[in-house]
Amino acid sequence: MKGIFSVLVENRSGVLSKTAGLFARRGFNIDSLAVGETEDALTSSMTIVSTGDERTLEQIEKQLNKKLDIIKVRRLDEINCIKREVLLVKISHNKTNRADIINICRLAGANVAQLSAQTIIIEYYSDPERVDELIEQLRIFGIVELARTGTLALQKDS
Amino acid sequence: MKGIFSVLVENRSGVLSKTAGLFARRGFNIDSLAVGETEDALTSSMTIVSTGDERTLEQIEKQLNKKLDIIKVRRLDEINCIKREVLLVKISHNKTNRADIINICRLAGANVAQLSAQTIIIEYYSDPERVDELIEQLRIFGIVELARTGTLALQKDS
Repeated sequence: MKGIFSVLVENRSGVLSKTAGLFARRGFNIDSLAVGETEDALTSSMTIVSTGDERTLEQIEKQLNKKLDIIKVRRLDEINCIKREVLLVKISHNKTNRADIINICRLAGANVAQLSAQTIIIEYYSDPERVDELIEQLRIFGIVELARTGTLALQKDS
Repeated sequence: MKGIFSVLVENRSGVLSKTAGLFARRGFNIDSLAVGETEDALTSSMTIVSTGDERTLEQIEKQLNKKLDIIKVRRLDEINCIKREVLLVKISHNKTNRADIINICRLAGANVAQLSAQTIIIEYYSDPERVDELIEQLRIFGIVELARTGTLALQKDS
Protein backbone atom coordinates (compact mmCIF):
# COMPACT_ATOMS: atom_id res chain seq x y z
CA MET A 1 0.00 0.00 0.00
CA LYS A 2 0.97 3.60 -0.55
CA GLY A 3 1.69 6.06 2.25
CA ILE A 4 1.67 9.80 1.63
CA PHE A 5 3.53 11.90 4.18
CA SER A 6 3.34 15.65 4.43
CA VAL A 7 6.46 16.78 6.27
CA LEU A 8 7.24 20.31 7.45
CA VAL A 9 10.98 20.76 7.99
CA GLU A 10 13.40 23.52 8.91
CA ASN A 11 14.75 25.18 5.77
CA ARG A 12 18.36 24.39 6.55
CA SER A 13 21.19 22.80 4.61
CA GLY A 14 21.39 19.05 5.22
CA VAL A 15 17.76 18.40 6.21
CA LEU A 16 16.86 16.79 2.89
CA SER A 17 19.98 14.65 3.05
CA LYS A 18 19.18 13.48 6.60
CA THR A 19 15.56 12.72 5.73
CA ALA A 20 16.49 10.77 2.60
CA GLY A 21 19.23 9.05 4.61
CA LEU A 22 16.69 7.81 7.15
CA PHE A 23 14.74 6.09 4.35
CA ALA A 24 17.91 4.63 2.81
CA ARG A 25 19.37 3.25 6.04
CA ARG A 26 16.15 1.56 7.07
CA GLY A 27 15.42 0.27 3.58
CA PHE A 28 12.21 2.28 3.27
CA ASN A 29 11.33 2.93 -0.34
CA ILE A 30 10.77 6.47 -1.68
CA ASP A 31 8.44 6.44 -4.71
CA SER A 32 8.50 10.20 -5.06
CA LEU A 33 9.55 13.25 -3.14
CA ALA A 34 8.71 16.88 -3.79
CA VAL A 35 10.32 19.57 -1.71
CA GLY A 36 9.68 23.27 -2.01
CA GLU A 37 9.68 26.44 0.03
CA THR A 38 6.63 27.46 2.06
CA GLU A 39 5.19 30.92 2.84
CA ASP A 40 7.69 31.07 5.71
CA ALA A 41 11.34 31.35 4.62
CA LEU A 42 12.41 29.32 7.67
CA THR A 43 10.54 26.17 6.67
CA SER A 44 10.23 23.85 3.68
CA SER A 45 7.52 21.32 2.98
CA MET A 46 8.09 17.83 1.62
CA THR A 47 5.56 15.40 0.22
CA ILE A 48 7.00 11.90 0.39
CA VAL A 49 5.24 8.90 -1.15
CA SER A 50 6.37 5.48 0.01
CA THR A 51 5.15 1.92 -0.46
CA GLY A 52 5.03 -0.71 2.24
CA ASP A 53 2.77 -2.68 4.56
CA GLU A 54 0.92 -0.89 7.36
CA ARG A 55 3.66 -1.68 9.88
CA THR A 56 6.37 -0.18 7.64
CA LEU A 57 4.35 2.99 7.04
CA GLU A 58 3.80 3.38 10.79
CA GLN A 59 7.54 2.96 11.32
CA ILE A 60 8.29 5.66 8.74
CA GLU A 61 5.97 8.11 10.50
CA LYS A 62 7.50 7.29 13.88
CA GLN A 63 11.09 7.64 12.65
CA LEU A 64 10.37 10.93 10.87
CA ASN A 65 8.81 12.28 14.07
CA LYS A 66 12.04 11.58 15.96
CA LYS A 67 14.17 13.81 13.74
CA LEU A 68 15.14 17.15 15.27
CA ASP A 69 14.93 19.21 12.05
CA ILE A 70 11.45 17.92 11.31
CA ILE A 71 8.75 20.22 12.67
CA LYS A 72 5.62 18.28 11.78
CA VAL A 73 4.78 14.96 10.12
CA ARG A 74 1.35 14.06 8.87
CA ARG A 75 0.33 10.85 7.18
CA LEU A 76 -2.41 11.80 4.75
CA ASP A 77 -5.59 9.85 4.24
CA GLU A 78 -5.30 8.91 0.55
CA ILE A 79 -9.04 9.01 -0.08
CA ASN A 80 -9.50 12.40 1.51
CA CYS A 81 -6.61 14.38 0.11
CA ILE A 82 -5.93 16.36 -3.03
CA LYS A 83 -3.06 14.94 -5.08
CA ARG A 84 -1.48 16.71 -7.99
CA GLU A 85 1.52 16.24 -10.23
CA VAL A 86 3.18 17.80 -13.27
CA LEU A 87 4.56 15.86 -16.20
CA LEU A 88 6.81 17.26 -18.93
CA VAL A 89 7.48 14.78 -21.71
CA LYS A 90 9.37 15.13 -25.00
CA ILE A 91 8.28 12.86 -27.84
CA SER A 92 9.61 12.46 -31.36
CA HIS A 93 6.98 13.13 -33.98
CA ASN A 94 6.58 12.84 -37.73
CA LYS A 95 3.86 13.30 -40.35
CA THR A 96 2.38 9.88 -39.59
CA ASN A 97 1.95 10.03 -35.84
CA ARG A 98 1.51 13.77 -35.17
CA ALA A 99 -2.30 13.79 -35.31
CA ASP A 100 -2.51 10.76 -33.00
CA ILE A 101 -0.25 12.38 -30.41
CA ILE A 102 -2.21 15.64 -30.46
CA ASN A 103 -5.51 13.75 -30.15
CA ILE A 104 -4.39 11.73 -27.15
CA CYS A 105 -3.21 14.92 -25.45
CA ARG A 106 -6.44 16.75 -26.19
CA LEU A 107 -8.52 13.91 -24.75
CA ALA A 108 -6.43 13.84 -21.57
CA GLY A 109 -6.43 17.62 -21.22
CA ALA A 110 -2.67 17.91 -21.78
CA ASN A 111 -1.10 20.84 -23.64
CA VAL A 112 1.65 21.22 -26.20
CA ALA A 113 4.39 23.32 -24.58
CA GLN A 114 6.74 23.32 -27.57
CA LEU A 115 6.69 21.98 -31.08
CA SER A 116 10.02 21.74 -32.91
CA ALA A 117 10.87 20.04 -36.20
CA GLN A 118 11.55 16.64 -34.64
CA THR A 119 10.06 16.74 -31.15
CA ILE A 120 7.03 17.85 -29.24
CA ILE A 121 7.03 18.76 -25.54
CA ILE A 122 3.78 17.96 -23.77
CA GLU A 123 2.86 19.40 -20.38
CA TYR A 124 0.27 17.75 -18.19
CA TYR A 125 -1.07 18.68 -14.80
CA SER A 126 -3.36 16.16 -13.13
CA ASP A 127 -3.58 13.55 -10.40
CA PRO A 128 -0.75 10.98 -10.41
CA GLU A 129 -2.89 8.08 -11.68
CA ARG A 130 -3.92 10.05 -14.77
CA VAL A 131 -0.27 11.04 -15.33
CA ASP A 132 0.62 7.32 -15.31
CA GLU A 133 -2.13 6.64 -17.86
CA LEU A 134 -0.97 9.38 -20.23
CA ILE A 135 2.62 8.10 -20.11
CA GLU A 136 1.37 4.61 -21.01
CA GLN A 137 -0.51 6.00 -24.01
CA LEU A 138 2.46 8.05 -25.23
CA ARG A 139 5.05 5.30 -24.77
CA ILE A 140 4.46 3.77 -28.24
CA PHE A 141 5.49 7.01 -29.97
CA GLY A 142 8.96 6.96 -28.44
CA ILE A 143 9.69 9.04 -25.35
CA VAL A 144 12.85 11.12 -25.75
CA GLU A 145 12.87 12.64 -22.27
CA LEU A 146 10.48 12.68 -19.35
CA ALA A 147 10.32 14.49 -16.02
CA ARG A 148 7.63 14.47 -13.37
CA THR A 149 7.43 16.29 -10.08
CA GLY A 150 6.25 13.44 -7.92
CA THR A 151 3.02 13.70 -5.96
CA LEU A 152 2.10 16.90 -4.15
CA ALA A 153 -0.72 16.42 -1.63
CA LEU A 154 -2.79 18.39 0.85
CA GLN A 155 -5.37 16.99 3.28
CA LYS A 156 -8.95 18.10 2.65
CA ASP A 157 -10.93 19.66 5.47
CA SER A 158 -14.02 17.75 6.50
CA MET B 1 22.20 33.26 -9.95
CA LYS B 2 19.99 30.20 -10.25
CA GLY B 3 21.16 26.89 -11.69
CA ILE B 4 18.67 24.29 -12.88
CA PHE B 5 20.00 20.74 -13.14
CA SER B 6 18.20 17.89 -14.82
CA VAL B 7 19.66 14.69 -13.38
CA LEU B 8 18.93 11.15 -14.52
CA VAL B 9 19.73 8.62 -11.79
CA GLU B 10 19.45 4.91 -11.19
CA ASN B 11 16.18 4.11 -9.44
CA ARG B 12 17.82 2.51 -6.45
CA SER B 13 17.48 2.96 -2.69
CA GLY B 14 19.99 5.48 -1.36
CA VAL B 15 20.58 7.52 -4.53
CA LEU B 16 18.51 10.48 -3.34
CA SER B 17 20.26 10.42 0.00
CA LYS B 18 23.70 10.37 -1.64
CA THR B 19 22.81 13.20 -4.03
CA ALA B 20 21.36 15.39 -1.27
CA GLY B 21 24.38 14.49 0.88
CA LEU B 22 26.76 15.80 -1.79
CA PHE B 23 25.00 19.19 -1.66
CA ALA B 24 24.98 19.23 2.16
CA ARG B 25 28.66 18.27 2.61
CA ARG B 26 29.89 20.88 0.15
CA GLY B 27 27.54 23.58 1.43
CA PHE B 28 25.69 23.85 -1.90
CA ASN B 29 22.21 25.18 -1.44
CA ILE B 30 19.13 23.27 -2.70
CA ASP B 31 16.24 25.66 -3.44
CA SER B 32 13.98 22.92 -4.66
CA LEU B 33 14.15 19.31 -5.70
CA ALA B 34 11.56 17.24 -7.52
CA VAL B 35 12.15 13.55 -8.04
CA GLY B 36 9.85 11.17 -9.84
CA GLU B 37 9.90 7.99 -11.87
CA THR B 38 10.57 8.05 -15.61
CA GLU B 39 9.19 5.89 -18.42
CA ASP B 40 11.89 3.36 -17.53
CA ALA B 41 11.40 1.65 -14.15
CA LEU B 42 15.20 1.46 -13.73
CA THR B 43 15.72 5.23 -13.69
CA SER B 44 14.39 8.30 -11.87
CA SER B 45 14.70 11.91 -12.89
CA MET B 46 15.48 14.80 -10.55
CA THR B 47 15.17 18.51 -11.19
CA ILE B 48 17.39 20.35 -8.73
CA VAL B 49 17.40 24.14 -8.45
CA SER B 50 20.34 25.72 -6.67
CA THR B 51 21.63 29.25 -6.16
CA GLY B 52 25.26 30.30 -6.36
CA ASP B 53 27.87 32.11 -8.44
CA GLU B 54 28.99 30.66 -11.77
CA ARG B 55 31.93 28.86 -10.17
CA THR B 56 29.70 27.14 -7.60
CA LEU B 57 27.21 26.03 -10.24
CA GLU B 58 30.06 24.59 -12.34
CA GLN B 59 31.32 22.74 -9.25
CA ILE B 60 27.87 21.28 -8.63
CA GLU B 61 27.67 19.96 -12.20
CA LYS B 62 31.18 18.50 -11.95
CA GLN B 63 30.54 16.81 -8.59
CA LEU B 64 27.22 15.36 -9.75
CA ASN B 65 28.93 13.94 -12.82
CA LYS B 66 31.40 12.05 -10.63
CA LYS B 67 28.70 10.07 -8.81
CA LEU B 68 28.38 6.44 -9.86
CA ASP B 69 24.59 6.20 -9.53
CA ILE B 70 24.07 9.29 -11.67
CA ILE B 71 23.57 8.44 -15.32
CA LYS B 72 23.35 11.91 -16.85
CA VAL B 73 23.56 15.50 -15.64
CA ARG B 74 22.43 18.46 -17.68
CA ARG B 75 22.55 22.08 -16.63
CA LEU B 76 19.58 23.72 -18.30
CA ASP B 77 19.67 27.07 -20.02
CA GLU B 78 17.13 29.02 -17.96
CA ILE B 79 15.93 31.15 -20.87
CA ASN B 80 15.43 28.21 -23.17
CA CYS B 81 13.66 25.71 -20.94
CA ILE B 82 10.11 25.03 -19.87
CA LYS B 83 9.61 25.39 -16.12
CA ARG B 84 6.48 24.32 -14.30
CA GLU B 85 5.36 23.95 -10.73
CA VAL B 86 2.27 23.03 -8.72
CA LEU B 87 1.05 24.91 -5.66
CA LEU B 88 -1.60 23.69 -3.23
CA VAL B 89 -2.51 26.27 -0.62
CA LYS B 90 -5.15 26.25 2.13
CA ILE B 91 -6.52 29.63 3.20
CA SER B 92 -9.04 30.56 5.87
CA HIS B 93 -11.99 32.42 4.43
CA ASN B 94 -15.05 34.28 5.70
CA LYS B 95 -17.93 36.33 4.33
CA THR B 96 -15.75 39.44 4.05
CA ASN B 97 -12.74 38.12 2.14
CA ARG B 98 -14.22 35.26 0.10
CA ALA B 99 -14.97 37.29 -3.03
CA ASP B 100 -11.48 38.84 -2.98
CA ILE B 101 -9.79 35.44 -2.73
CA ILE B 102 -11.85 34.00 -5.58
CA ASN B 103 -11.14 37.05 -7.75
CA ILE B 104 -7.39 36.88 -7.25
CA CYS B 105 -7.44 33.18 -8.14
CA ARG B 106 -9.55 33.76 -11.23
CA LEU B 107 -7.19 36.48 -12.48
CA ALA B 108 -4.15 34.24 -11.96
CA GLY B 109 -5.84 31.20 -13.53
CA ALA B 110 -5.85 29.23 -10.27
CA ASN B 111 -8.68 26.88 -9.31
CA VAL B 112 -10.57 26.11 -6.14
CA ALA B 113 -9.86 22.46 -5.29
CA GLN B 114 -12.00 22.34 -2.14
CA LEU B 115 -14.25 24.73 -0.27
CA SER B 116 -15.12 23.85 3.32
CA ALA B 117 -16.85 25.96 5.97
CA GLN B 118 -13.65 27.60 7.22
CA THR B 119 -11.02 26.96 4.55
CA ILE B 120 -10.50 27.00 0.83
CA ILE B 121 -7.86 24.91 -0.97
CA ILE B 122 -6.49 26.55 -4.10
CA GLU B 123 -4.56 24.67 -6.76
CA TYR B 124 -2.28 26.46 -9.17
CA TYR B 125 -0.16 25.18 -12.00
CA SER B 126 2.18 27.67 -13.62
CA ASP B 127 5.80 28.74 -13.91
CA PRO B 128 7.60 29.21 -10.56
CA GLU B 129 7.71 33.03 -10.76
CA ARG B 130 3.93 33.25 -11.11
CA VAL B 131 3.53 30.78 -8.23
CA ASP B 132 5.64 33.14 -6.09
CA GLU B 133 3.43 36.07 -7.12
CA LEU B 134 0.19 34.28 -6.24
CA ILE B 135 1.54 33.32 -2.80
CA GLU B 136 2.41 36.96 -2.16
CA GLN B 137 -1.12 38.03 -3.07
CA LEU B 138 -2.75 35.37 -0.88
CA ARG B 139 -0.52 35.93 2.13
CA ILE B 140 -2.71 38.72 3.61
CA PHE B 141 -5.70 36.36 3.92
CA GLY B 142 -3.81 34.01 6.24
CA ILE B 143 -2.19 30.87 4.83
CA VAL B 144 -3.12 27.77 6.86
CA GLU B 145 -1.00 25.28 4.91
CA LEU B 146 1.04 25.40 1.73
CA ALA B 147 2.85 22.84 -0.41
CA ARG B 148 4.62 23.28 -3.72
CA THR B 149 6.40 20.74 -5.88
CA GLY B 150 9.52 22.72 -6.63
CA THR B 151 10.50 23.48 -10.21
CA LEU B 152 10.19 20.84 -12.91
CA ALA B 153 12.08 21.72 -16.09
CA LEU B 154 12.80 20.38 -19.56
CA GLN B 155 15.15 21.88 -22.16
CA LYS B 156 13.45 23.14 -25.31
CA ASP B 157 14.68 21.93 -28.68
CA SER B 158 16.02 24.63 -30.96
